[in-house]
Amino acid sequence: MLRFRCIQLFTSPFEAPFIQSFKPHTSISCAQMGSYSTTSSSAQNSPKLVFRQLFEKESSTYTYLLADASHPQKPALLIDPVDKTADRDLALVKELGLKIIYAINTHVHADHVTGSGLIKTKFPGVKSIISKASNAKADLFVEPGDKIYFGDIFLEVRATPGHTLGCVSYVTGDGPNQPQPRMAFTGDALLIRGCGRTDFQIFTLPKDTLLYPAHDYKGFTVSTVGEEMLYNPRLSKDKETFKNIMQNLNLSYPKMMDVAVPANMVCGLQETKSEAC
Amino acid sequence: MLRFRCIQLFTSPFEAPFIQSFKPHTSISCAQMGSYSTTSSSAQNSPKLVFRQLFEKESSTYTYLLADASHPQKPALLIDPVDKTADRDLALVKELGLKIIYAINTHVHADHVTGSGLIKTKFPGVKSIISKASNAKADLFVEPGDKIYFGDIFLEVRATPGHTLGCVSYVTGDGPNQPQPRMAFTGDALLIRGCGRTDFQIFTLPKDTLLYPAHDYKGFTVSTVGEEMLYNPRLSKDKETFKNIMQNLNLSYPKMMDVAVPANMVCGLQETKSEAC
Repeated sequence: MLRFRCIQLFTSPFEAPFIQSFKPHTSISCAQMGSYSTTSSSAQNSPKLVFRQLFEKESSTYTYLLADASHPQKPALLIDPVDKTADRDLALVKELGLKIIYAINTHVHADHVTGSGLIKTKFPGVKSIISKASNAKADLFVEPGDKIYFGDIFLEVRATPGHTLGCVSYVTGDGPNQPQPRMAFTGDALLIRGCGRTDFQIFTLPKDTLLYPAHDYKGFTVSTVGEEMLYNPRLSKDKETFKNIMQNLNLSYPKMMDVAVPANMVCGLQETKSEAC
Repeated sequence: MLRFRCIQLFTSPFEAPFIQSFKPHTSISCAQMGSYSTTSSSAQNSPKLVFRQLFEKESSTYTYLLADASHPQKPALLIDPVDKTADRDLALVKELGLKIIYAINTHVHADHVTGSGLIKTKFPGVKSIISKASNAKADLFVEPGDKIYFGDIFLEVRATPGHTLGCVSYVTGDGPNQPQPRMAFTGDALLIRGCGRTDFQIFTLPKDTLLYPAHDYKGFTVSTVGEEMLYNPRLSKDKETFKNIMQNLNLSYPKMMDVAVPANMVCGLQETKSEAC
């Protein structure tokens, strides 16, 4: 049975994290297939959202910076930060006048070391977030249905297992003051024209939802739910064909696996372990 | 003296290209420094604009796909296509149901071979575009003040010499039906937190104008005029300091220079030369 919690920005230093029950968002409407006016551009009716897509070239990883610019504190979060580019990302946060409050991972990465721990050593107030199902260390654990607030904007947590058991996707909220079209940060669960048996959750989102994965190896930066339903070479197939494709990929052993996974279980800082998470 | 022309999409195959004089856009208003709600996201009031930022990893080059999705023909253009990723870009154009009409370069590149010629061999109806001042071959030559229409959306041509004499930037139009905030495709003239003595033209744009350069070597994908005025380590300096910085860069000889420049003078296809351009 799922629990639904609400993680909010604490405007006072004396406020502690709290868990709030609320009615889960059970009926996701499936809108008509929209036009492809993605514009890498999301947030069309939300001038308050700051959004930046950042790239780490060695592992082809995308890190996403989101912030609520209309909130007095300009609270910001980073999704899937990389240790090697953490300084770049924090410099940008400073230049944009933002206050970093969360370092969030979609899952325990096997191809790069997360920047969460490093960010926390530089900004001790930052809370690291990962799914409870990942079994990794973090300050806050999320479960499907949870909402992560930064200012007045929130991310909704969706279970998208397949790549790893604990994989979740973070989706911008559904509401009048939330970015439109919605944006889904899919981690490694769904790549553009690529992998992941995660269509059950992600493909119930409106077709114009912008898809932001954790990697791209061909130079794409964004897609939509509608496009992936049509053109994803794996997810557009029937179940048996999909299983055959996945069983015959013959992928080589990930070169960073033995370094990255143990490090990412403890926020990217093996030496200091639990203290950093 | 500048001439001002208007390049429009021909809705009938019998219509020939025409040159139209119009009053140049001489007074660019310089809006208040906006918030940094760039959202990689542009086009906030323009649901008809299709926009995709595409990356070629070897030369860290950005190619930009723009189209007018609300026009019956869904006319599209590519800015700074790369030969190695031309097939990827054309496949995406097809998947999105677009009709490619222009292959546009900001300048004669020295670090990669343009995809313009290759695109034209696959889609002979496509017209290649470059600035007249570049002295390169192309189907259409643009000059500062020209407008390049694709459907009802247009790009305005701005002279941004410095990197090369013929460098131009393409800026989305200023008008009620044009994308807001405006988007400037700056080529190599202005990189994010990087080079180019081109501030005279680009820095007269509103501060919330989204800046899309032709490369990024640090993993950034977009910036704004306001940000670069504040944080660009070269352009935020006075003229003498800037000159000193540029004279002491001690850059190595570009590895692709001897291949790329001759090829890019003839649309990327040296063998077929003028036929392909």
